[in-house]
Amino acid sequence: MTLNRFMKLAIEYAAKTDNEVPVCAIIEKEGKILSIQTNKKENLSDITAHAEILAIKEASKKLNISILKDCNMYVTLEPCPMCAWAILNSGIKNVYFGAYDSQYGAMGSKINLINISKNKPDIYGGIMEEECRKLILDFFQKIRTKQ
Amino acid sequence: MTLNRFMKLAIEYAAKTDNEVPVCAIIEKEGKILSIQTNKKENLSDITAHAEILAIKEASKKLNISILKDCNMYVTLEPCPMCAWAILNSGIKNVYFGAYDSQYGAMGSKINLINISKNKPDIYGGIMEEECRKLILDFFQKIRTKQ
Repeated sequence: MTLNRFMKLAIEYAAKTDNEVPVCAIIEKEGKILSIQTNKKENLSDITAHAEILAIKEASKKLNISILKDCNMYVTLEPCPMCAWAILNSGIKNVYFGAYDSQYGAMGSKINLINISKNKPDIYGGIMEEECRKLILDFFQKIRTKQ
Repeated sequence: MTLNRFMKLAIEYAAKTDNEVPVCAIIEKEGKILSIQTNKKENLSDITAHAEILAIKEASKKLNISILKDCNMYVTLEPCPMCAWAILNSGIKNVYFGAYDSQYGAMGSKINLINISKNKPDIYGGIMEEECRKLILDFFQKIRTKQ
């Protein structure tokens, strides 16, 4: 129940993004939300400004420590290699992601960076998968229609 | 000659870092330096604050565009998966790195993210390798001595 509550919230935030690939990441600790961030790559003209990176930075700032012990991440799309490595290095305990990314997913779909990581969080993919995949599909459909 | 000039400068900057794994990344375009950044992970309490990420962010800000066309990166250590993917996504043209990283290097040593990337920059490893490796070895030697 709790799990789906956070993922549902992430989907709501992702759906509100404009002109960005709709992805949202939430970091939670002991039931409290530390950060909710969406992809801001285009808005910030910064290729590192993925939802997961921004969420890790915000949570670290809030806790005033770089290692996010006992924290969980909920993210609507399987992380890319950049974000996956940041998550693994952050010490996050559990990662719940929605849609699988067969093209760039780095938590099992395209490659699996956990294999070479010192930290081994528990990773659960396919949480509310249909809704999460629909976000991405609808976004690219809209772009194709515009073109 | 130019190549070694930039790498030498990167080594100088990396050597000046304190309490951080000594890594420096320089981004250059048409002979002009856009960014010089060292690893600031500990100082900023931010696990994403690797030299390469900071250098990409600074260069993008300076050029006011996220894609670093016709730019080259010089970095003293082979990038980790997080940085390698950021570099690949940034559109950087040539990557020159110093020391190989058999543990986490993601441009050929441990894994090779170029294989799954759309962008395929030219990548040259082992530039001034001895000096670059010495930086890292000396740092960890110093830590062991302190302990």
